[in-house]
Formats: sequence, C-alpha cells, structure tokens
Amino acid sequence: MVGPTSYFDPARVDELDPRTADLVRRRAAALGPAYRLFYREPLEFVRGEGAHLFDADGNDYLDAYNNVPSVGHAHPRVVAAIAEQAARLNTHTRYLSEPTVAYAERLLATMPELAEAHVMFTCTGSEANDLALRIARAATGATGVLVTSYAYHGVTAEVAAFSPSLVGPDAVAPWVRLVPPPAPGRDFAAGVRAGIESLAEAGLRPAALIVDTVFASDGVFPDVPGFAEAVAAVHAAGGLFIADEVQPGFGRLGAGMWGYARHGLAPDLVTMGKPMGNGHPVAGLAGRAEVVAAFAAQSRYFNTFGGNTVSIAAASAVLDVLDDEQLIAHAARVGARLADGMGGMPNVRGVRGAGLFVGVDLPDEPFTLDVVNALRERRVLLAASGPDNATLKIRPPLPFSDADADRLLEELDAVLSATAG
Amino acid sequence: MVGPTSYFDPARVDELDPRTADLVRRRAAALGPAYRLFYREPLEFVRGEGAHLFDADGNDYLDAYNNVPSVGHAHPRVVAAIAEQAARLNTHTRYLSEPTVAYAERLLATMPELAEAHVMFTCTGSEANDLALRIARAATGATGVLVTSYAYHGVTAEVAAFSPSLVGPDAVAPWVRLVPPPAPGRDFAAGVRAGIESLAEAGLRPAALIVDTVFASDGVFPDVPGFAEAVAAVHAAGGLFIADEVQPGFGRLGAGMWGYARHGLAPDLVTMGKPMGNGHPVAGLAGRAEVVAAFAAQSRYFNTFGGNTVSIAAASAVLDVLDDEQLIAHAARVGARLADGMGGMPNVRGVRGAGLFVGVDLPDEPFTLDVVNALRERRVLLAASGPDNATLKIRPPLPFSDADADRLLEELDAVLSATAG
Repeated sequence: MVGPTSYFDPARVDELDPRTADLVRRRAAALGPAYRLFYREPLEFVRGEGAHLFDADGNDYLDAYNNVPSVGHAHPRVVAAIAEQAARLNTHTRYLSEPTVAYAERLLATMPELAEAHVMFTCTGSEANDLALRIARAATGATGVLVTSYAYHGVTAEVAAFSPSLVGPDAVAPWVRLVPPPAPGRDFAAGVRAGIESLAEAGLRPAALIVDTVFASDGVFPDVPGFAEAVAAVHAAGGLFIADEVQPGFGRLGAGMWGYARHGLAPDLVTMGKPMGNGHPVAGLAGRAEVVAAFAAQSRYFNTFGGNTVSIAAASAVLDVLDDEQLIAHAARVGARLADGMGGMPNVRGVRGAGLFVGVDLPDEPFTLDVVNALRERRVLLAASGPDNATLKIRPPLPFSDADADRLLEELDAVLSATAG
Repeated sequence: MVGPTSYFDPARVDELDPRTADLVRRRAAALGPAYRLFYREPLEFVRGEGAHLFDADGNDYLDAYNNVPSVGHAHPRVVAAIAEQAARLNTHTRYLSEPTVAYAERLLATMPELAEAHVMFTCTGSEANDLALRIARAATGATGVLVTSYAYHGVTAEVAAFSPSLVGPDAVAPWVRLVPPPAPGRDFAAGVRAGIESLAEAGLRPAALIVDTVFASDGVFPDVPGFAEAVAAVHAAGGLFIADEVQPGFGRLGAGMWGYARHGLAPDLVTMGKPMGNGHPVAGLAGRAEVVAAFAAQSRYFNTFGGNTVSIAAASAVLDVLDDEQLIAHAARVGARLADGMGGMPNVRGVRGAGLFVGVDLPDEPFTLDVVNALRERRVLLAASGPDNATLKIRPPLPFSDADADRLLEELDAVLSATAG
C-alpha cells in the first residue's frame, strides 16, 4: 500500500499540484537523481521559529524531526552572532583568534573524561568521523573498524565504507566488521569481541570501535548492556573508542552534554556536528592529547572553513543558549512526557527514549510509512528509522514546548488509531 | 637564516610579546600540535574589509593572500544575504527550496561545456573532491587516479591519499600516479600517458585525471602545453577528467568563471569551494548527467549542511556581486598590472599569472621565506608555494584596487631589493 521508502517517488510527480510538480521537475534536472525528497507529497518551507516550520501559505508545521536547529529554528541569538561576526571578519585558523581558542577550551571543559585533550574543527560530521579515523589509524597503526549493523557515520568515501545503512551491509570495506546493535538482554560486548576475532582471522587489528552513542540509525537504543565491557575489549585489542556524538551530543539526551557520559565511558575521540552551530556548517572532534600527537607526527591539519571566526561565533552562541535557556533539563522533562504519553498508544510495540530522542516501534514498515505520511498531512514532521524502517524517530528542536508535546501526542494518537495494521 | 617552513615555530613562543605568547600557548593546548600558524610572528585580526585586514590596534594589512573572501572581506551584500536568510530559515535539501534550484540552474548556465549536467552540494572543497572521486569510480568501474606531483586536493582520508603536497609523494595510495606539472616546453600529455601505462602495469585503469586548473600548489601554471591531449588520453583509457576549480574558479583568473574554460576543455566533473560563499562553508560539484546517474544507481546522496538555505543565499549573493561589480574583468586588468610590475624586479626569476592568481619565482626557499616574512612586517600578506617553496603565491580578494596594487608593488620591490640572496 506504500512505496518502499519514506522518500518521494519521482514517478509520481504528475500527481502533485502544478507549481510543486514544476519545482520537483526543475530540481531533478538541476540536482540529479542522487537527491531525495521527504514524503509522498514534498514540502517547501519559507520560515522557521522554535520547533515550527511554515510554508508559503503560512501553515504551521510542528517539527518533531530536525535535530540540526537544536536550540530552535532561526534562534535570534545565534542569528545575531552570525550576522555580527560575518560583518566584522570571517577568517581561518592559521591566524590567531582568541574566540576560537576560548570556544575550544569551553568545549573541552565539558569533557573531563578525556583528561588532557585537543579540539579540531571541520565543517561536517562526515569530515569529523573521517578525521577521527585518520587519527585512530595513526595512533594505533591498525586499520580495522567496528560499527553497528545499521550504522550511519557519514558520506565521505572512507566513512561511507563503514556506514552500512548508506551503502548496504555487503558493501562495507574489507576492514569493517558489523556488530549487532544493543538490545534488551543482548550483551553488546559479545558482538564487539566477535568482531575483533573476525578481524584477527583476516590478519587485521581494530583501529577503532565507533558508535553513535544513542544508536539512532539502528533504531534508537539509549540503554546498552555491556557497553563498558565492549570499550574495554577494544582497548585490550589496541583499538580506540570513538564516540560519535553527531546526533546525541549537545544535550539532546537530557543528561549532560554527551551521550557517552550517560554510560560512564571515557572515549579516546569524540566527534560532533549537526547541532553544533544550529544549522551553520560547523563540526569537529575532541581527542586525547596522545592520540592527536600521534597523528600530528604524521601530518599537519588545516580545514579552510573549519573553525572560521563566523562558525565559532555560531557555535559559541549555541552553548550560551543551551545554558541560559536550560535546554538540557527541558529536554529531559519534555522527552519523558513524550515517551510516557506514547507508551500506551494503539499499535505501539515499544518506546525507547532519552531526553528529546525517542524511538517508537510500530508493527512494520508499511504501517510506519503510512503513519509518517499521515502525520505530515496533519502538519507534524517526523520520520521512520531502524533496520526495518518500523521505528518512528522523534528528535525535535530542544525548545519543544509542553504545548508542542500535547500537539504531537494528540496527532500521533489520532493517526495510530486510524491507521490499519 | 630561516626556519624550514613558512609556519610559526612553536619553540620560539618565548620570543613573542607576552599577550601573543599567552594566546599561542593556550591555542597549542586547546587545538593541539597538528595546527599551524602563519609567519615567524603570528597575526591576529579583528576586522576585514575589501582586500584589507585590521588588527586590534587598527593597523591596516594589505591582503594579497586570501582567496576565500573573494568578493572582499565582509562584503555587505553577502553578509546581508546570510543574516536575512539565517533569520528566516536554515534547512536542508530534503525539503523543496526554489532558491536552491535556481542557484543550481544559474551555476550550470556558466558551464555550457558540460551540456546536460547536475549540481551536488557539499560544505568544503575536500568533500567535493571526495564525492567527485566516488562518482568517477562508480561511472568508470576503475580505481586509478592521476594527479600532478605536488597536487593538493583536500583533507579527507581518500583525498589526502591523492594529495602528495599534504602527505608526501611516497605516501599517496597505491592507486595513485603522479604526473609532472606543466612547464614551458614540457608536454603535459606525455606524463599523463606514462601514468596511465604505469597504472596498467599494476593491473589498474584510471577513474580520473584530477587537476587544479591553475596548478596552484605545483607553483602556479596558467599555460599548459598538451592539456587537451592529456584529457583525450584519459578519456581514451576510460577515465574521467575532473577540473578542480576550488582555487581558480569563480572568476579569479580574469577570463570567464572557470579555469578549465581558458583551455577550451570539457570536463566530466567540476569541483568548487573556497570562494563560492565568500567564506561561508559551501562547496560542491557539477557533473555530466550520465556520470551522476551511474553514481545515483549505486547510492543516494545527502549532505546535512550542504546546500542549506543560508549557504545558497551566500553563494547567490557572491554571483550577484561578481556580476554587478564586474570583478572578473577587474581581476584581468589588475592582475596584468601586477604581473607586469613584478617582471622586472630584482631577484625575480619568472612571473606566471592569470587574472588575480600570480606566481613569482624567487631564487630559493630561504630567500622566499625571508621575503614573505619581511612583507608581513610591512603589513602585506602573501605566502610561498610550489615544490621548492620558492614561488610567491599572490591571490588577493578580487576587489584589489589600483591603489592596493601600487602598495603591493612598492613594498615587494623594496623587500626584494633589500633581501640578501
């Protein structure tokens, strides 16, 4: 009853209203066939504010999906910081910049687990994970990479090669081993140990275990039996632990800044991106000093736009807003309300959440895609996730209010009640 | 008489004034040892305007180096475009956006040589070249890459592996062959043919010849005997021609928008970056439709920040300013003045230029580094380049005025006259 994915099917362009159909056709001609659009009926927005997006007719869509504008769409403090700095100076890290150093110091202060450590700037989470792997390989002299079975870590050639959810499980590189994601009653460490053994059988050692600490593309798993033991196993095999905080980081999980800290872990490298500049392209990593030193002994590092003065202004404003608006505590409280409210709804098979990252298991993919598209018709934005595309992925901008939560719960309940299983 | 590189030597931190020394130490602790600073005495700027940078004391530095703020530091139209769009909406390419499509169409209209083609957005030139290689490999089924001997194409793991100026000529990947850069009387095509043969001896075929069309890191070579024959040889071997326009593109060479067009070439892929958003992190590529289709058959493509609505606003404003201020014609005129003026200066062994990209050969590396640092003391910014670090690389913001040119010529002449060979 539905298409095989949650994306728009280009073959259905003639069913759209004439103006939208024309724009979709022009877009296909200009951007080509590798690009996708969300929903059976694509959306075009012209304005955003808080957790709301607006189309050209002024219709208000509730955004329960976009984790990038984390402190709220078009947050005035972030916008002002970007505008003021762009009007003054946009330059790079080969000149001195006090604000750049101060931002890095401030970021490192949120990661006491890393002890002595450094920050390195990129523009995207993909670049951060790519650089983290280069560093891990320099520090360990090893090549192997352990990731979860449906992991997504980014889009560069090297990172795509360890992103099975992008390229498919059979197209990962020969130096990659897939580890079953966390699940109730499953020992995550057992999978990691098996991966290390499998690498050893091929004559390889692990450079790193890299995991999204909320396992978003695996279906959202905030609880991870055996996580500490898995990290210990990688360390024992000479590899590093890379915490990919591109999705969970910057307070989304409602318990401190970083997903790894919820588990009491001490990563060797921490990568970050999406919410770091509230949409401004800034990303980066923090790494233990000795690990970064091993890399620096092989190569200098420069990223033309990475850590430029405007990116730093945006990223600094995001930290200010997180603090001043107490968004982490807010995420914990509203996220718990969402998870509680969804637990008893019809057709819900399970709810897993931490702060404002909630996964809701539904019966199967067709059902889930119907729900996603029915919600879109009711002007509520979210998406399907997980290996079976049967989990709703809910991760709104953090200033998601109680009224926003009420609206989401009400619309979801109505759609779940009305959708045929 | 000088250090081995044009970077600041961290061992000399105690020689700096106390405030600068403190910031350099804090920076080293925060960003770590892979980062570099320009000059024997590092610089910190607080404001930029046109082709000028200003330090905290209000000192005016003439910027003859930075090609990123291509239409001028803090250009008010680009700043306004960023500020207005950031205040309205910053979102991604999985929703429809008319301005994004319109920008891609406008960009493609500048590349008639590609005939039917598509644009794909990234955030950095590194990501653009990384994606171009993924596309080239998908389209050709081959793995080999031909680059010039001192090429720099970026910093992702895969791109670093074909950037000998970053990793060293011996550390390029086994699927890479180095081709001697253009030189007077040297047939560029002969080197490319030899590279193809060398790949064949290893059982490999070329996926692509990728070159910076002004050969910036090879020492700036606007004239390329045998360029068309080199491209023909790669095509005959089943490979693609990727024009890396990250440095020469967007009019810097004073002859149309793209460096490849000066040579009458028709690339399969064109990558772009640095000046595209005047410092805002936006980059991308254009590719022939059939090449992109081969990639799309294997993989969808999404870059979270790539082509976001604010990046598109910045990039569109850059095209507006290039047109309205007629900066390409200006670059041709002022660039010719610079090259003419430098030709007769003491110790100059050769001058090669196209528009506002000029390379000036000096006797050797120590001499060149002394000149670079002496100019920095006189508040003129440029750098050394080329395999021997004995070429001055001059590539200022395009609104470089006649008065700016006079100042550069005067200061350079004074320094060249005073520097001992």
